[in-house]
Amino acid sequence: MKRKCLEKAECATARSLDTIGDWWSLLIVREVFLGRRRFGEFQKSLGKARNILTARLKNLVARGVMEVVPASDGRAYKECVLTEKGRGLDIVLIALRQWGESCLYEDGSPCHASAVHEQHESARPGRELHTATFRVVPAAEG
Amino acid sequence: MKRKCLEKAECATARSLDTIGDWWSLLIVREVFLGRRRFGEFQKSLGKARNILTARLKNLVARGVMEVVPASDGRAYKECVLTEKGRGLDIVLIALRQWGESCLYEDGSPCHASAVHEQHESARPGRELHTATFRVVPAAEG
Repeated sequence: MKRKCLEKAECATARSLDTIGDWWSLLIVREVFLGRRRFGEFQKSLGKARNILTARLKNLVARGVMEVVPASDGRAYKECVLTEKGRGLDIVLIALRQWGESCLYEDGSPCHASAVHEQHESARPGRELHTATFRVVPAAEG
Repeated sequence: MKRKCLEKAECATARSLDTIGDWWSLLIVREVFLGRRRFGEFQKSLGKARNILTARLKNLVARGVMEVVPASDGRAYKECVLTEKGRGLDIVLIALRQWGESCLYEDGSPCHASAVHEQHESARPGRELHTATFRVVPAAEG
């Protein structure tokens, strides 16, 4: 089914979903928060076919969530980094993680409670959530 | 492409994405927060084909996010409501809305800032986000 375009939807939630694209595109964003920057790293970590991953990355770049830049170590590779808009998605990743941790583990959550609490420390009544102190950590570090 | 099942993934974010299913299934959840409970209401509001909407609803029920109950007014209709797990998704909707509002409107956001701030009032340092006071409102009311 062709997806109904919600880019200009009145509802901010619908616009966000449309901009992110396929749900698992958020896992690419998560990968970048985890320090990965190269196509091969994403491919290895997410286990997606090359053409599918390329299409999702292109969409994230076209929507201004990610950008392609020269490699930080001066080599010929290109790297994928988050734009300011993309970095703003940390709050969505936190929310998904918090929901997953509280509802989707039958025998206790293995990870991340400290990271979520660190985020909440930055919340002040009447202010927007601020995630500058937040760092997404892989399960092994949680 | 067949989706890789992430139901048992180590990462809570991946589990959450897998449980929610297709990206726009969250719009069904949003509809319920807005007070809609019937298949016809979802169909009218979301503009989805009957068979597609049925499949997404079935998935949300199978994953424990929604349940089908007798109509609250005693009529023969069935209604779709959120389970406790499903109600927990309000934090994800808030995060998506907040990101959309801050990043996806070129000429100012039309809606919802008050609802997001109401949510933040319930946040206390070191505690989990709590959304009991939060109410999702349509753009027209924002």
